[in-house]
Amino acid sequence: MPRKSGPIALLTDLGVKDHYVGVMKGTILSVHPDARIVDLSHDVESHDVTTAYFLLQNAYRYFPKGTIFVVVVDPGVGTERSIIGVETTDFTFLAPDNGVLGFLGREEKIRRIVRITNPKYFLQPVSNTFHGRDIFSPVAAHLAKGADLGKMGEKAEAFTRFQAPSVQVAKDSVVGEVVAIDRFGNLITNITKERLPEGDVSIEIGAAVVREISKTYGTRKARELLAYLGSSGALEIAINKGNAAKKLGVKVGDAVRVTRA
Amino acid sequence: MPRKSGPIALLTDLGVKDHYVGVMKGTILSVHPDARIVDLSHDVESHDVTTAYFLLQNAYRYFPKGTIFVVVVDPGVGTERSIIGVETTDFTFLAPDNGVLGFLGREEKIRRIVRITNPKYFLQPVSNTFHGRDIFSPVAAHLAKGADLGKMGEKAEAFTRFQAPSVQVAKDSVVGEVVAIDRFGNLITNITKERLPEGDVSIEIGAAVVREISKTYGTRKARELLAYLGSSGALEIAINKGNAAKKLGVKVGDAVRVTRA
Amino acid sequence: MPRKSGPIALLTDLGVKDHYVGVMKGTILSVHPDARIVDLSHDVESHDVTTAYFLLQNAYRYFPKGTIFVVVVDPGVGTERSIIGVETTDFTFLAPDNGVLGFLGREEKIRRIVRITNPKYFLQPVSNTFHGRDIFSPVAAHLAKGADLGKMGEKAEAFTRFQAPSVQVAKDSVVGEVVAIDRFGNLITNITKERLPEGDVSIEIGAAVVREISKTYGTRKARELLAYLGSSGALEIAINKGNAAKKLGVKVGDAVRVTRA
Repeated sequence: MPRKSGPIALLTDLGVKDHYVGVMKGTILSVHPDARIVDLSHDVESHDVTTAYFLLQNAYRYFPKGTIFVVVVDPGVGTERSIIGVETTDFTFLAPDNGVLGFLGREEKIRRIVRITNPKYFLQPVSNTFHGRDIFSPVAAHLAKGADLGKMGEKAEAFTRFQAPSVQVAKDSVVGEVVAIDRFGNLITNITKERLPEGDVSIEIGAAVVREISKTYGTRKARELLAYLGSSGALEIAINKGNAAKKLGVKVGDAVRVTRA
Repeated sequence: MPRKSGPIALLTDLGVKDHYVGVMKGTILSVHPDARIVDLSHDVESHDVTTAYFLLQNAYRYFPKGTIFVVVVDPGVGTERSIIGVETTDFTFLAPDNGVLGFLGREEKIRRIVRITNPKYFLQPVSNTFHGRDIFSPVAAHLAKGADLGKMGEKAEAFTRFQAPSVQVAKDSVVGEVVAIDRFGNLITNITKERLPEGDVSIEIGAAVVREISKTYGTRKARELLAYLGSSGALEIAINKGNAAKKLGVKVGDAVRVTRA
Repeated sequence: MPRKSGPIALLTDLGVKDHYVGVMKGTILSVHPDARIVDLSHDVESHDVTTAYFLLQNAYRYFPKGTIFVVVVDPGVGTERSIIGVETTDFTFLAPDNGVLGFLGREEKIRRIVRITNPKYFLQPVSNTFHGRDIFSPVAAHLAKGADLGKMGEKAEAFTRFQAPSVQVAKDSVVGEVVAIDRFGNLITNITKERLPEGDVSIEIGAAVVREISKTYGTRKARELLAYLGSSGALEIAINKGNAAKKLGVKVGDAVRVTRA
């Protein structure tokens, strides 16, 4: 028996200025008029698979069981790259096979991997440039209506795993990097709580040093630089009521070093 | 018997920074708590009727039958301009009578045109500056609930047709123009597949020349200029992983010439 | 008996680039899969409580009875500031107790004020930086499902009232200020219709003077400066097909003087 589906959550780099996202929603509703559609983000930078990976990794667990995640950040659209469907215990993910789902399988059991190839579920004719409309949307809508993922294509054994930036852990220090910068200019690192040295620490980022880990922004004075454990469980650096990325001139990929004090 | 309605799709230039779009949705839900509302775009440039025309023309056919399209790109709000409702075989459109629906009637049979004048369906008092809230939203909500378009005003014979940019076709060449630039900087022209000369072609735009029509972006090297048939069926010019509009300095309205090679 | 709930309307400064708003929606749907969620705005400037106050004040009355408004503009997140729930005759509001609800009680009867403290309704563990996800979303979802506000914490007698900019009324003049600038660059003041001197007036703003109150933009020539009563009932200054804020160099907080002519 097909699982009863939850909402369809969309993560794309299509923006909301053009008609592309609206057309995806129209296509979904044409197949499944009762579909529930939730926007995760459409403002990923064009073709920025790394950011999409990060966003989805930090977001998916907060959605209801049965949610179908659709990722259209797809620099290879129209080439030979595959589209994959991955079913975990709680969720289904549809994405180009470009590594964007590489975080799956650490916390969730993967139940099935399917290469999406069955044209019966596509909008015909399939264009070369907008698979978000022609493949992802109708396939997601059919899944949400209860169609079985197995009918969408051939079973596969594996999918591409994007190499996420790694963390180097030594005896008294750990070196990671900035993996995202949010709207507030907060610098989100890949150093999780478990990786931090015990006791007092000092944190180096760009030309700045932060000498303690605070509880939250509001515990610091305005314009003060601070470090804290962010809502996704990783070390973040911010300026209370300011923009740390701009102030420090730090970009995604820049190193962050935490040393035992 | 009124047709069972599909979703209400909104296309406006109101932006999402202010409360205007939220207020339209609140107004719709106040009349029809079960209405389904889909955003087509709210980021059309202020008063840019041409872009709204283009967006809607490329989007509407992907929506479910019964969808009610509401266009609030309305430089004439509060003046004597009319608001019209146009019913086609599959859809209903509500818009200021400023030409934005001028593409209707080519692919779709027009069944009824109604000038929206019945204050019974308006939010009172009607302001002079926000008919999106006071007229478009409650009228759309009543239509979605099953009210008949004919009761919303007087039957009309015609509506304003925006003069879309034309294409000049000669024996071995065709000259059109850029009608839109999307978020990626891709240049969307008004030259459809059927208008292209047969065989090999060369495409002139700004100071650049493209010597073939590619299948998709990904078939070209990064930073390479290419031409291809876009998802709306028209010729587009893009730079793979780059921004063609910025690189070429091209704007909406600039000419594009395709010549038989 | 709990009131049947309307939609959940979200007003935040979280932006739509990151995953934060999507995660709030996922959290709401995890608690209440049938919740209806409406975006009021997510593009309030970071920590700009004044603009959030203005947006909500102008928007809430257009929503259906039973709507739950959730305000996450929360510079004090993680500090000792409270979260409050305010129930009026028609609506429920959830917000940090930072003054953003200070307009309540003028047009609406306040029925209950509750300090939100019951961890049973929170997502555990509660982070120090993202109460939008951990407290506001699940509490709103439980309210929308029919849970009683009284069970969410302790009854309170009052909440913080943000001091909105005041208007000085003299015999032949009134002085207010610009309280918001919308996407079009229109200057929205806090001078309501009732406060205007009777008869002909002259309006001073920045270095400009406007000598009459027009019915709407479209009654003026393009690029002409005009004043009119806006859709929220207050005096606005705009440039027809132009941006008044940029042209006049006016900011939020700048004075506007209306004098009897």
